[in-house]
Amino acid sequence: MILFVLKADSSSFKEKLKSTSASYRMVNLYGKHVAVAWPDSEVEGVKDEAVEIMVKTKKSYVLAGNEWKRDPTVVKVGDVEIGGNKVVVAAGPCAVESEEQTETVAKAVKRAGASLLRGGAYKPRTSPYSFQGLGEEGLRILRKAGDETGLPVVSEILDPRDREVFGKYADMVQVGARNSQNFTLLRELGRLGKPVLLKRGLGNTVEELIQSAEYIMMEGNGNVVLCERGIRTFEKSTRFTLDIGGMVAGKLMTHLPFCADPSHPAGKRELVHSLALASVAAGADMLLVEVHPRPEVALSDSEQQLTPESFQLLMERVRALASVLGRST
Amino acid sequence: MILFVLKADSSSFKEKLKSTSASYRMVNLYGKHVAVAWPDSEVEGVKDEAVEIMVKTKKSYVLAGNEWKRDPTVVKVGDVEIGGNKVVVAAGPCAVESEEQTETVAKAVKRAGASLLRGGAYKPRTSPYSFQGLGEEGLRILRKAGDETGLPVVSEILDPRDREVFGKYADMVQVGARNSQNFTLLRELGRLGKPVLLKRGLGNTVEELIQSAEYIMMEGNGNVVLCERGIRTFEKSTRFTLDIGGMVAGKLMTHLPFCADPSHPAGKRELVHSLALASVAAGADMLLVEVHPRPEVALSDSEQQLTPESFQLLMERVRALASVLGRST
Amino acid sequence: MILFVLKADSSSFKEKLKSTSASYRMVNLYGKHVAVAWPDSEVEGVKDEAVEIMVKTKKSYVLAGNEWKRDPTVVKVGDVEIGGNKVVVAAGPCAVESEEQTETVAKAVKRAGASLLRGGAYKPRTSPYSFQGLGEEGLRILRKAGDETGLPVVSEILDPRDREVFGKYADMVQVGARNSQNFTLLRELGRLGKPVLLKRGLGNTVEELIQSAEYIMMEGNGNVVLCERGIRTFEKSTRFTLDIGGMVAGKLMTHLPFCADPSHPAGKRELVHSLALASVAAGADMLLVEVHPRPEVALSDSEQQLTPESFQLLMERVRALASVLGRST
Amino acid sequence: MILFVLKADSSSFKEKLKSTSASYRMVNLYGKHVAVAWPDSEVEGVKDEAVEIMVKTKKSYVLAGNEWKRDPTVVKVGDVEIGGNKVVVAAGPCAVESEEQTETVAKAVKRAGASLLRGGAYKPRTSPYSFQGLGEEGLRILRKAGDETGLPVVSEILDPRDREVFGKYADMVQVGARNSQNFTLLRELGRLGKPVLLKRGLGNTVEELIQSAEYIMMEGNGNVVLCERGIRTFEKSTRFTLDIGGMVAGKLMTHLPFCADPSHPAGKRELVHSLALASVAAGADMLLVEVHPRPEVALSDSEQQLTPESFQLLMERVRALASVLGRST
Repeated sequence: MILFVLKADSSSFKEKLKSTSASYRMVNLYGKHVAVAWPDSEVEGVKDEAVEIMVKTKKSYVLAGNEWKRDPTVVKVGDVEIGGNKVVVAAGPCAVESEEQTETVAKAVKRAGASLLRGGAYKPRTSPYSFQGLGEEGLRILRKAGDETGLPVVSEILDPRDREVFGKYADMVQVGARNSQNFTLLRELGRLGKPVLLKRGLGNTVEELIQSAEYIMMEGNGNVVLCERGIRTFEKSTRFTLDIGGMVAGKLMTHLPFCADPSHPAGKRELVHSLALASVAAGADMLLVEVHPRPEVALSDSEQQLTPESFQLLMERVRALASVLGRST
Repeated sequence: MILFVLKADSSSFKEKLKSTSASYRMVNLYGKHVAVAWPDSEVEGVKDEAVEIMVKTKKSYVLAGNEWKRDPTVVKVGDVEIGGNKVVVAAGPCAVESEEQTETVAKAVKRAGASLLRGGAYKPRTSPYSFQGLGEEGLRILRKAGDETGLPVVSEILDPRDREVFGKYADMVQVGARNSQNFTLLRELGRLGKPVLLKRGLGNTVEELIQSAEYIMMEGNGNVVLCERGIRTFEKSTRFTLDIGGMVAGKLMTHLPFCADPSHPAGKRELVHSLALASVAAGADMLLVEVHPRPEVALSDSEQQLTPESFQLLMERVRALASVLGRST
Repeated sequence: MILFVLKADSSSFKEKLKSTSASYRMVNLYGKHVAVAWPDSEVEGVKDEAVEIMVKTKKSYVLAGNEWKRDPTVVKVGDVEIGGNKVVVAAGPCAVESEEQTETVAKAVKRAGASLLRGGAYKPRTSPYSFQGLGEEGLRILRKAGDETGLPVVSEILDPRDREVFGKYADMVQVGARNSQNFTLLRELGRLGKPVLLKRGLGNTVEELIQSAEYIMMEGNGNVVLCERGIRTFEKSTRFTLDIGGMVAGKLMTHLPFCADPSHPAGKRELVHSLALASVAAGADMLLVEVHPRPEVALSDSEQQLTPESFQLLMERVRALASVLGRST
Repeated sequence: MILFVLKADSSSFKEKLKSTSASYRMVNLYGKHVAVAWPDSEVEGVKDEAVEIMVKTKKSYVLAGNEWKRDPTVVKVGDVEIGGNKVVVAAGPCAVESEEQTETVAKAVKRAGASLLRGGAYKPRTSPYSFQGLGEEGLRILRKAGDETGLPVVSEILDPRDREVFGKYADMVQVGARNSQNFTLLRELGRLGKPVLLKRGLGNTVEELIQSAEYIMMEGNGNVVLCERGIRTFEKSTRFTLDIGGMVAGKLMTHLPFCADPSHPAGKRELVHSLALASVAAGADMLLVEVHPRPEVALSDSEQQLTPESFQLLMERVRALASVLGRST
């Protein structure tokens, strides 16, 4: 694969590409005109004065790779910058259950120092008999709580046909682990253009996660945050195995920022703090933490959600940790 | 969870359920009126003369479980019966590439004794730069080749919005490993009503596979064939680890038939025969085998597709094996 | 690495090797004088008329690899040949518990058609509070039962210091999964010279299993049977995941025969037959099956041991299967 | 299982246990007389005035569990305390290669602030053709370097017959991942009495790691430090997957301290710092880090060993991190 960064949208360059038998794709990313073309043998000879950078790669991802873009990408969600100096924390309930529950959490996490409000409206549940979320009503409640607290909101999308409703209510759209290779959905989010929080699938490699990001970027949306949330292994003392090493290796492979979700791999409240701190120490740009005003009565993930008090303590610990790492929160 | 099998659609039973605060779902499956209701404490007291069978279960799946339905389900695709005495073989190219390629394979696999024609039209590829399939045109070609050879056709769906085009062209709709927990898609196929070949996700347990089937069945479609196709493990001498033990354990958990896909876990042509024979010996009701007239020039999965000659030999071996197991092909 | 097969023990060849700065090792295997030397750059120039075959390999195993020895190795245990046309079955209790129990099983498995008697005397138990086996007394009982039935016996060794007692009582020495990379023990068994049944570790690749065999062979013992017994994965419906694909891939990598153990991965009696048949269909040269006169009171692995009746039925099914595969039992 | 803590060695208590048909084991641990007995039904009735604490447990480990011993165990190696407030760092080469190499590293890691010197003398290598270590000579060199720098030394044992030589030269004896369930070796180290650094096997659960410790403790040696060093998963961007969540969960299951080895799972130098910091943030009591004066010419693990300069930087970062966590180094 060959990637070209162009000084400007160049019709002469495009003509030259077309005259070969190469396949190619042109996108606008981070204010640049970028072209990806293949196979190499067809494209190598293409020269044009519009070409600023030309990178030949054997990697399985190109736009998401850091061979052409050395500086880390900063994804903006409202005023919040993910991938910069600040360790950004998104917090909120696993599922939006009611206006009251959501507002209570929103205020609590805001007070504790969170920068984003998360909450599930459409819930992907292994069993069809489990609570499936409030749907659009859930998104509306989340939006309201976000507006009241001044926190941008992030929520998970399941169906490409819900594109418009997420366009209306969400500031950042989450793709869950089960849809990490739902390429139909990824393309749709590429076109929607909103920042995407892309979770790693339970059985996917870090490389595949980055390749999934490529599907979104290929449609011209470069605002992707990758999220490590634990993989399936034989170990059963935790719900999933948080692959901190994979996240660290991933950060060397891409310019995109990384989020870590300590709640899902923990599966148990007692483990969340340690996994969150470990993730920040390892270089996570963002944390995604489940908080519920009364976890014991939560309609989903009851075991792993933090109380507001515990979350406040976690924020204090994250803040102290970030400071010695030269970062802020 | 409590499952009721009713003698008839009974309004008095429904009234009684409604009068509790239980959640419930009524479906028509295999010619029976079935209700699933929960929580147990609310439902246990419901008595009605329409109730033929009442099963209380702690399993995470109900309709797909065999506590209420002991006899194995036979899924009919055209005249082909999956789950009966016959070991059914579906064969064809990884991807439909052209009319000629598809017809050549269709005739070859028909001659060798395959019962179904498989071929990918919409291809879920890890990389957006890989061949993505011919789309609707691919389905049309597949349909034509199926009609000419008298083989019902099976192809993979990626997008719930393609429901109609699959309704028009396919006899059986495949859900691939990456969409095994794409519940939006599963529900849509439950409503479409066509037989579904549901593959296990790379990082999913057998129990989760059966729970995914539950999503389809809950919409009233009981024609689901589960497919073991290999899971992600640390072993790298094969592409995936075909979990034959998981399939065998799964057959004890559900009344649905099981298919095995020896091609994807093999990753290498040389291993396909052995994995296919092992699957049949372990009790697979169906095999899904990739066959290409010239594997070396295939646009996808070039390494693992069998030649027509090799497939013919495999069919002979399967036939001999099936006969000593008291089955036919 | 370079491997030389010599026509005869050649002092001139040895002199030439010594005159380089290469590392080397000379062994007698299968009646041949074999030398392994490295690094390649030092050894390539060595020419001698004693050299019959010279193989340069980049594989991580040499003696166990099939680049120099194309014909499958047949391991003889008493009169029993493992790796030839016959599917050899070793059966017996997980643990030797008493003379009566062992003799009962020995007679039953002999009658059903087993060729070898297996039984644990030194038991590696995850918990120190579990039954640890009868030790030398167990070996003595096993030997006696073997002698009475005419079945050669195989038992697991845990401690290199038990070499002599195994030399006295066992016909074949088993290395268990937990000791698959206990190189101290492997070397000792290389020197002992008795046939070795080498199990794959729970977390080891097939390649590592073959490398472990290399440790035994390097001491001049080529009588190694590799054993697939299931690996650790996330799937929990079976105790371990029997990696049939790994075994098939392994058979292409080595000339050594492969055994499959369907009992340990099954973990449940109901799954053993299917896994055994699948293993034979995939090409296993040997089966290792746990049989107990009264599994429900067994001191270990109570859940997965077959009754003598069930084992008899299994042997009939294996026999039928073997016959259509062109093999005997 | 029932565990008794006795006020004193009590013959009356022992008589009472003997008079039941229970199995039991008496050990001296942390200055206490402790008895473990089973099955519960036999032991429950045993009363004696010597009994201070009686704990009934369903866990698979007893002595290593924290139901009877709430306070964390501090393991002393020379003057170094592992499991207390200090984050202890052991550093040194993967393999002892020469006196010069070892002394250079020893001085460097001492200067940077390490508390223990590690170095391999007997190397367990997957391939028999890889460098196997200097053996006893390596231990002697390590001892000398330790004495010169005042650092206690830790080295890996492979063979129970090497007990005496380790007794002579080592301050702490390491059991490697491959021998994590080599119960013969564990028992021997229980009897040797020196502090043990017990690594988790590649395919072992945290629970099994703690059960392995039980084998050592059952012989009266309570000085065991558990070590997380990465498990085998499908992810290949790192050599192994460091299971930080498993370590955190493990710390809630046992009173024994935990070490983390960031070098082996990293497999690549660039990842070691992040994994080390993550481990400390998650609560590791100790780090085990590979350092080589010139990693590029190392005889083993060349890719993952830190230079002395990089190690010094790591120590500074660990120190800063420990301070905000309320710990020292």
